[in-house]
Amino acid sequence: MGFCRSWLDSANGRDCDFPLNNLPYGVFSVGDGDLRCGVAIGDRIVDATGLEAAGLLRADPDADVLDAPYWNDFMELGRNAWSRYRAALTAMLADGVDEVVQDAIIIHSVPMAEAVLHLPFRVSEFTDFYSSRHHATNVGTMFRGAENALPPNWLHIPIGYNGRASSVVVSGTPITRPHGQIKGPGDDAPRFAPSARFDIELELGAIIGQASDRPISVAEAFENIFGYVILNDWSARDVQAWEYQPLGPFQAKATATTISPWIVTAAALEPFRTSTPARAEPLLDYLNEPGPMLYDIALEVGLSPDGGTETLICQTNYNEMYFSAAQQLAHHTSSGCPMRVGDLLGSGTISGPEKHNRGSLLELSWGGKEPLTLDTGEIRCFVEDRDTLVLRGHAQGDGYRIGFGSCVGTVRPASQ
Amino acid sequence: MGFCRSWLDSANGRDCDFPLNNLPYGVFSVGDGDLRCGVAIGDRIVDATGLEAAGLLRADPDADVLDAPYWNDFMELGRNAWSRYRAALTAMLADGVDEVVQDAIIIHSVPMAEAVLHLPFRVSEFTDFYSSRHHATNVGTMFRGAENALPPNWLHIPIGYNGRASSVVVSGTPITRPHGQIKGPGDDAPRFAPSARFDIELELGAIIGQASDRPISVAEAFENIFGYVILNDWSARDVQAWEYQPLGPFQAKATATTISPWIVTAAALEPFRTSTPARAEPLLDYLNEPGPMLYDIALEVGLSPDGGTETLICQTNYNEMYFSAAQQLAHHTSSGCPMRVGDLLGSGTISGPEKHNRGSLLELSWGGKEPLTLDTGEIRCFVEDRDTLVLRGHAQGDGYRIGFGSCVGTVRPASQ
Repeated sequence: MGFCRSWLDSANGRDCDFPLNNLPYGVFSVGDGDLRCGVAIGDRIVDATGLEAAGLLRADPDADVLDAPYWNDFMELGRNAWSRYRAALTAMLADGVDEVVQDAIIIHSVPMAEAVLHLPFRVSEFTDFYSSRHHATNVGTMFRGAENALPPNWLHIPIGYNGRASSVVVSGTPITRPHGQIKGPGDDAPRFAPSARFDIELELGAIIGQASDRPISVAEAFENIFGYVILNDWSARDVQAWEYQPLGPFQAKATATTISPWIVTAAALEPFRTSTPARAEPLLDYLNEPGPMLYDIALEVGLSPDGGTETLICQTNYNEMYFSAAQQLAHHTSSGCPMRVGDLLGSGTISGPEKHNRGSLLELSWGGKEPLTLDTGEIRCFVEDRDTLVLRGHAQGDGYRIGFGSCVGTVRPASQ
Repeated sequence: MGFCRSWLDSANGRDCDFPLNNLPYGVFSVGDGDLRCGVAIGDRIVDATGLEAAGLLRADPDADVLDAPYWNDFMELGRNAWSRYRAALTAMLADGVDEVVQDAIIIHSVPMAEAVLHLPFRVSEFTDFYSSRHHATNVGTMFRGAENALPPNWLHIPIGYNGRASSVVVSGTPITRPHGQIKGPGDDAPRFAPSARFDIELELGAIIGQASDRPISVAEAFENIFGYVILNDWSARDVQAWEYQPLGPFQAKATATTISPWIVTAAALEPFRTSTPARAEPLLDYLNEPGPMLYDIALEVGLSPDGGTETLICQTNYNEMYFSAAQQLAHHTSSGCPMRVGDLLGSGTISGPEKHNRGSLLELSWGGKEPLTLDTGEIRCFVEDRDTLVLRGHAQGDGYRIGFGSCVGTVRPASQ
């Protein structure tokens, strides 16, 4: 599918994150106004709640599913409704549409620069996976040695653990450096202190748009995924190292997980589908992909010290994943685990083969042994107070891009 | 506090789970009727939703917090409202109250035998801990040998992991034996098959009644806990053994967690408070208990094969815990993790020092090596299809008991 031109000029630039091909879903407010559902196009946000109330564009003829500060009720409607809505909105925003329609859209939209963005959906539960082979190999090498880097189950299972939905925040939310129980290898006893190894994890988050209450196939799982966000799973590595045996990460991952504010739909990403890599071990049937279910999405991380310019510390791609979100979701349901609309599945940290492809500071600084030098001359092993971390991503089309916007967080000093 | 007599005779028996001292909160329906909030007393359920609508007993003068199929909105009101409501209800049900009040209660109540019980609260998120020292020692010995039984962090941290709220079901819900990825020690490759080591875990669940968004003390945590239920965390041990490294249990624990239908309030359990045991290692300050925060609650598990009589396979007590729910909750918030009304915290399997005190079949059969002989003559290592497991608990007062009712599940064969 080629580039689709909009009558809204700002949507037509080659570097615009939000061309007509994208139409990602978010939640916004202006001034003291209510939270409303919106769709990004160029430098504006179309007020989807307003269009629905005015009867100009309805997802459901009988219910005001967008009269809510989240897209969950819209997602409940299912794939046919998602497609119809996207097609109708695309038609209204396409170049050449009647001026009456254009005027209505202008009335029911706001400049993005004037809006505050909120969580785009109500997070039901949050699961975080561990499905980048380079990341698992790097971390395993540091924690357990090169011989035991990849756990024996890793090539067979999209390994994951349940995270904490209550800690998911939208881009821009300040992150307070957490305290935690910490015991270094040379310490006699643990202590309770601010994390000294506070880190990021560059991930893609998949949003479940349809509920299920039984094991589903990878093909069904793919159909149930509504869209994606960029996700930063803040991690206290010193807390994690002491707490994670035998039941996995817990408080090390519970401070905050930041997501980008726009849900980029699976529909918008359709032209960018790509396959997971060749299998190192054959998969069990329930995990076999019937077609390409990853996406080619370029990802990067910038780090800006307080008042300083940004250094690009990581560039990688979602196509590095060993398991797709569809495989992760199918595995998630394999026990009969019920999934709900609004469940969020983190891909796991996305690292590539080269050093600059690593999606966490733990890997970039090799556990703090190889500090990074920023463009400002400062060095970093982990995140310092007042650092701002920006995660970005986009799929590159011919003359356009499907952008995710930014996933931003600035770290505040630990509370006293 | 001594026994409180009710004008409702059925509430006054020594073995009644629901005397006036208890007044646990549940959700019920009769026939095709709506789900309503109810309070158990003797052999009846007081229709709390109906009393509120009639203006006879209101928790909030301005809002119908009980006009809902869950107690979450009531919990939101906070401790003062909880106390006032309990005091008012106690007065209405106490021996000697005016007959007009008695008549009103009879009108706004139903026989328990005619009601269907539902989940008493909307589960926000579910966390499961691992805080019984006997259980952790038993499991650790089986999985890692006697020398490494207790992980190095165990005496310092209430170890826990996030579970899956969507899988929490009310007592009586049939449980389908799950499939999962399984690889035994002698197997060349994993296979996808029904779990052959399906198990129970006898736990107490604490229900969070007040939200928090910062680290809270153990004393604050104690105040934020609304009440307790009996909890059975169904566990597929063969799935768990293969999947749990390095990120902890995932699909092994995602099929179902059954809870008893009545929330026994912290207020009702107040006379039964008891201390955690002496510390084997000093705790960090943020985990120190300012007073007794466990409860003396006798617990037991019965197993009935299809059509057979019940064998009591376990008797233990909640006072065996090494960490209380208040300590667990304080630790849960230590990273800044936000907690919400309706969060459910499982204590972890509760085992005592003797063999018959073990709260899981994994321990009772020592990993399948020492089969149990049931009273019917049948043997069991793990749960067989069509077995019914009943978990019960009560605090024993002088001439009365604070009962939890039953937490029941019957296992169905795996689906094809």
